[in-house]
Amino acid sequence: MKMKKFINQPENIVAELLEGFALSHPQQIRLVGNNLVARAAPKAKGKVGVVTLGGSGHEPGLSGFVGEGMLDVSVPGEIFAAPGAPRCLEAIRLADYGAGVLFIVLNHAGDVLSANLTMEMAKREGLNVKMTLTHEDISGGTNPEDRRGLVGFLPVYKVAGAAAEEGQPLDACFEIAERMGRNMRTLAVAVQTATHPSTGHAIFELGDDEMEIGMGQHGEAGTGRMKLKSADETAEIMLEMLLKDLEVKAGEELLVVINGAGATTLMELFILFRRVDQILKARGIKLARAKVGEFITTQEQAGFQLMIARMDQVLLRLWDAPSNAPYFVVR
Amino acid sequence: MKMKKFINQPENIVAELLEGFALSHPQQIRLVGNNLVARAAPKAKGKVGVVTLGGSGHEPGLSGFVGEGMLDVSVPGEIFAAPGAPRCLEAIRLADYGAGVLFIVLNHAGDVLSANLTMEMAKREGLNVKMTLTHEDISGGTNPEDRRGLVGFLPVYKVAGAAAEEGQPLDACFEIAERMGRNMRTLAVAVQTATHPSTGHAIFELGDDEMEIGMGQHGEAGTGRMKLKSADETAEIMLEMLLKDLEVKAGEELLVVINGAGATTLMELFILFRRVDQILKARGIKLARAKVGEFITTQEQAGFQLMIARMDQVLLRLWDAPSNAPYFVVR
Repeated sequence: MKMKKFINQPENIVAELLEGFALSHPQQIRLVGNNLVARAAPKAKGKVGVVTLGGSGHEPGLSGFVGEGMLDVSVPGEIFAAPGAPRCLEAIRLADYGAGVLFIVLNHAGDVLSANLTMEMAKREGLNVKMTLTHEDISGGTNPEDRRGLVGFLPVYKVAGAAAEEGQPLDACFEIAERMGRNMRTLAVAVQTATHPSTGHAIFELGDDEMEIGMGQHGEAGTGRMKLKSADETAEIMLEMLLKDLEVKAGEELLVVINGAGATTLMELFILFRRVDQILKARGIKLARAKVGEFITTQEQAGFQLMIARMDQVLLRLWDAPSNAPYFVVR
Repeated sequence: MKMKKFINQPENIVAELLEGFALSHPQQIRLVGNNLVARAAPKAKGKVGVVTLGGSGHEPGLSGFVGEGMLDVSVPGEIFAAPGAPRCLEAIRLADYGAGVLFIVLNHAGDVLSANLTMEMAKREGLNVKMTLTHEDISGGTNPEDRRGLVGFLPVYKVAGAAAEEGQPLDACFEIAERMGRNMRTLAVAVQTATHPSTGHAIFELGDDEMEIGMGQHGEAGTGRMKLKSADETAEIMLEMLLKDLEVKAGEELLVVINGAGATTLMELFILFRRVDQILKARGIKLARAKVGEFITTQEQAGFQLMIARMDQVLLRLWDAPSNAPYFVVR
């Protein structure tokens, strides 16, 4: 299948998409410095800054979540590639309003490499930065370091961003982010490949009747290639694995996020969610909050990510706090 | 290409997707009666009710826009098919809080047939209903009746819904909806077909290097099949046609909406928006507001709709008013 995308010169994709993003949301965000996505109206002194980094081509992730109540600055990389450390350092300086900076990093090799280098440079400059790593993809095995960061970034941005917005100090924001991170689990499934928009090449191959559970954000191999299953069967398999890994007990309260990969429809995500809700009810687990939509995509890939997170009253309050981020408005 | 969708029995798609939609947004919407999507907390007496109808398979359209500040009740049909008049009448009765009902209908043959029959039945019951038809697709020619209703439903729902919310009477809400309708124009382009989720069949065919401007929501033939063009060229062709048809002059204020068809990425929509913004600036036309995202989709179809609307101060105020509709939250 030939790639049919509305682009111009492939080498200009990232610059042009960021320009369009900024022009379409002038009240909320602006581009500053070396293509950093920052709030249009930065906070005055005293607030902890919240910064993230990540490759482009996953819109609205990650820069769509810059805004009051969420991120202060996002550092977008090239397509499917981490940004370099100098731009991350620039973002941290920008977000340092005097109360320190929380640096949220998704566990992918390139991102972690840039982030670690950034932390060394920041330390040398005497900047007050704490880094939190999200790694909630259970397909990576039992070692946390082998678990990738998937859509779990969303609740981490949300609760840590809300804590920062209400004036909590850096240590507290860091602890909130880590607590959210420890209590969430994600599993992805893919049924159709994406093409890399700069080259037009498929990023993985799947048979006409196959799906793969555990596939990473860019087609990284998962744990279970199998025949395509119904929505209900797919939801059952994935949710059981997640509940077991997080050791969820009856009576506990969960946040559930279903994230569409790109070409998978909201229609399908709702059908999947229905089965998730049925299973939780049958097990006496309370659905505290839900979010269904596209938060991090991979071009025209089809599939979805299912995330569950154990919530407490503090995390729920922060999840519900207002946000004006362009792709996550909360009243 | 084989359809790979997460569904169960094809005959249950609509019931299951509505169930999942309602379960995932219990604070905002609920299913009532014969699968009508209504507000979870209906308004007390005295507010004009706002009702719409339309086929399923286009999520988040149309039911994703039920909520405070937008719709009161949406009547979802089967996949790509209008609901029948009896359910529309049920919706109108439900939304009649004593101040009458505004019935917003998108110009598609099936929807109009059901809507006209509903209006007759409502009149016989003595209900106070006014119907407004959206028909802003300029590919239909110069006769308004031949112009389909595309993503223009969004500003009409928004401004009429906001007018109803602030307590304006039915005549005023109707006039606001009509004024919005007269001042908007849309053009669609498709580059890749969708499959009908119940049958797995492609709904139209396009060559590997072709695109079609003016294609309708369900693959209805457009006016211009041509070789695939760059993002900038496509935006230029389409925006010029729209500006000419709406007779936009320098100094006027526009709302621009870019709606992704399903598989087209937000990345591409931002790149397209950037060019739209450049052209408007060059012509001295003011971009008053913008919205870029997926508001009405057609499964895994690739392409987008470009909408422009001439705004005045009243329309802008109503566009900016708060909404808690699940897929159109405005603070």
